[in-house]
Amino acid sequence: MTTAAQHRFLIIADGQFDPLTSKTANSCIRYFPERIVAVLDRSQAGKTAQDVLGFGGAIPVVGRLEDGLTRGATVVLIGIAPMGGQLPSEWRDWLRTAIERGLEIWSGLHTFIGDDPELGALARARNVSILDARRPPPDLPIADGRAANVSAFVVLTVGSDCNVGKMTAQLELRSRLVQRGHRTRFVATGQTGIFIEGWGIAVDAVVADFIAGAAERLVLEGARDADIVLVEGQGSLIHPGYSGVTLGLLHGTVPDAMLLCHQATREFIADYRPGGAPWVRIPPLTELVDIYERAAAPVRPARVIGICLNTFDLDEAAARDAVEHAREATGLPVTDPVRFDPAPLADAIVDAAVAAR
Amino acid sequence: MTTAAQHRFLIIADGQFDPLTSKTANSCIRYFPERIVAVLDRSQAGKTAQDVLGFGGAIPVVGRLEDGLTRGATVVLIGIAPMGGQLPSEWRDWLRTAIERGLEIWSGLHTFIGDDPELGALARARNVSILDARRPPPDLPIADGRAANVSAFVVLTVGSDCNVGKMTAQLELRSRLVQRGHRTRFVATGQTGIFIEGWGIAVDAVVADFIAGAAERLVLEGARDADIVLVEGQGSLIHPGYSGVTLGLLHGTVPDAMLLCHQATREFIADYRPGGAPWVRIPPLTELVDIYERAAAPVRPARVIGICLNTFDLDEAAARDAVEHAREATGLPVTDPVRFDPAPLADAIVDAAVAAR
Repeated sequence: MTTAAQHRFLIIADGQFDPLTSKTANSCIRYFPERIVAVLDRSQAGKTAQDVLGFGGAIPVVGRLEDGLTRGATVVLIGIAPMGGQLPSEWRDWLRTAIERGLEIWSGLHTFIGDDPELGALARARNVSILDARRPPPDLPIADGRAANVSAFVVLTVGSDCNVGKMTAQLELRSRLVQRGHRTRFVATGQTGIFIEGWGIAVDAVVADFIAGAAERLVLEGARDADIVLVEGQGSLIHPGYSGVTLGLLHGTVPDAMLLCHQATREFIADYRPGGAPWVRIPPLTELVDIYERAAAPVRPARVIGICLNTFDLDEAAARDAVEHAREATGLPVTDPVRFDPAPLADAIVDAAVAAR
Repeated sequence: MTTAAQHRFLIIADGQFDPLTSKTANSCIRYFPERIVAVLDRSQAGKTAQDVLGFGGAIPVVGRLEDGLTRGATVVLIGIAPMGGQLPSEWRDWLRTAIERGLEIWSGLHTFIGDDPELGALARARNVSILDARRPPPDLPIADGRAANVSAFVVLTVGSDCNVGKMTAQLELRSRLVQRGHRTRFVATGQTGIFIEGWGIAVDAVVADFIAGAAERLVLEGARDADIVLVEGQGSLIHPGYSGVTLGLLHGTVPDAMLLCHQATREFIADYRPGGAPWVRIPPLTELVDIYERAAAPVRPARVIGICLNTFDLDEAAARDAVEHAREATGLPVTDPVRFDPAPLADAIVDAAVAAR
């Protein structure tokens, strides 16, 4: 498949463009802002990405599809991942128009645009490419433990919740480790990572029996030409909706080490509030470390070797306090790898990889 | 859909009919032996089910499809669940012949027979029904915690491994609790249970993001007209290939209590032996109890209230010793609910349900 570097994107995040909800849009803006011509959100037209997110610079938020198309987009990218993954019906007109104009559609929804009777047929008739990043490969195996035998050092990010920075942390660490000369590969397990890297499997979209098999295949592929493999984690072992994906990924990747990701200010699982009330309280970091190490242990023991602390909603001083507090509580290296220097975690990975030889 | 009570079955278990491998076939033979006309296994033709399994009586094992068809079968049921779920190519002829003769096909494979270009088309042309029990409903939700609010007392079987008796235990307990006058519902989460009950969802076949959502839907349905809901568990939290299904089911059902199922003689995860060597050792029962209670706790605490010990491969004295040993080790009620009186576990469920009111 193609990668983001070859395209110019109009991102649809209608009604949901904000720091927390539009996770796919935001990650694309963080990792290839120079390729993004506009974000479509009727409720915030006239602002910039910087206004809304605090990063992303002058990328305009537009209120009409046309305002994005005239800026030279070659791809319309669906930048939100709604609960359940259904295609909002009012977007159908936009996608039809985009296909008629010859733009590719990139989507991470569970409902595959390419299988939509109208849009899929239109795209085929116009010879327009639709990338459904969540579509699993057709021939996934049941895991059989082969990921345990790769010679590369495999690091999995795990989290207190969804959307705390498990992909972002690995991308920052990949950059740093590559800078230092380590042969390092990032392995995408979700749609945004697949958009960024051009390969991967959205493990939350495979048939449940094959979660670990998909994870195993990804590790084998990632380890072919790397000494360090950084696997993007998914969900959380304490997230009632998605914990199965998390455990399957943990046991299928058979990591050598884990990095625990957490948003410093988050007290409850964010998107799981039956009747609107918070339900699942996030336990202290030391307990989360224990939960993940115990879950890994029956298959193969692996330690949490560092904490990635997401501090985007804290001011500078509070962020530094939060990092220091987490370091004292856990005795582990801690940083916000986006905001601060990722070196403490890069060091922890290299040290652990050396020690494991 | 129809249920087993309306049909007569020829079960295909070719080359794999034995006490451990042909799990689907064996469960059907245990629960509706009077409806089964023959088992097809070329390697054991001439024996009876009793010879092979130690139960099932005079049901003949035949070596030719024809020998089953002439015994009045109305359904050909695929009775093995191979790793990966692919349809063995040599079975195609049998299924084609069966469809041409007007027999239904019941399958629990991941590869849907109804979607097979040849067999599916043939069945449609002949107006023959194909039941792919693993096909998920098209509209599954993301879980949102509603299973926590049902008034019924929900019991989930959990296990040390696959194929240790998680479905069988619940079916035995259902019978006993119904005998005692409790409004009790069994909830099928795998293909065999669906064959037996006529409804359910094979949770290992749903898209990974929807495991818990499927579990939640099943509990809501099961609780509509019952005071006790007995949910069939799947896999094991320590099974590297299937643990994701297990945790998703645990968090989606939000059980009030768990029953831990184990085969007394099993030391390692049985079907996960990379290179043929055993890998994952099954920890002691007390540690398994702890693993499951800790996994449940962040969402909603639930206790393991009893142990279902599968002793099929032990003689009577050794089986009684194993039960006594497990009782001493865990301090919990223990029985083999198939071999011995299920009363200790039925009592434990009723007592816990009363205490929870």
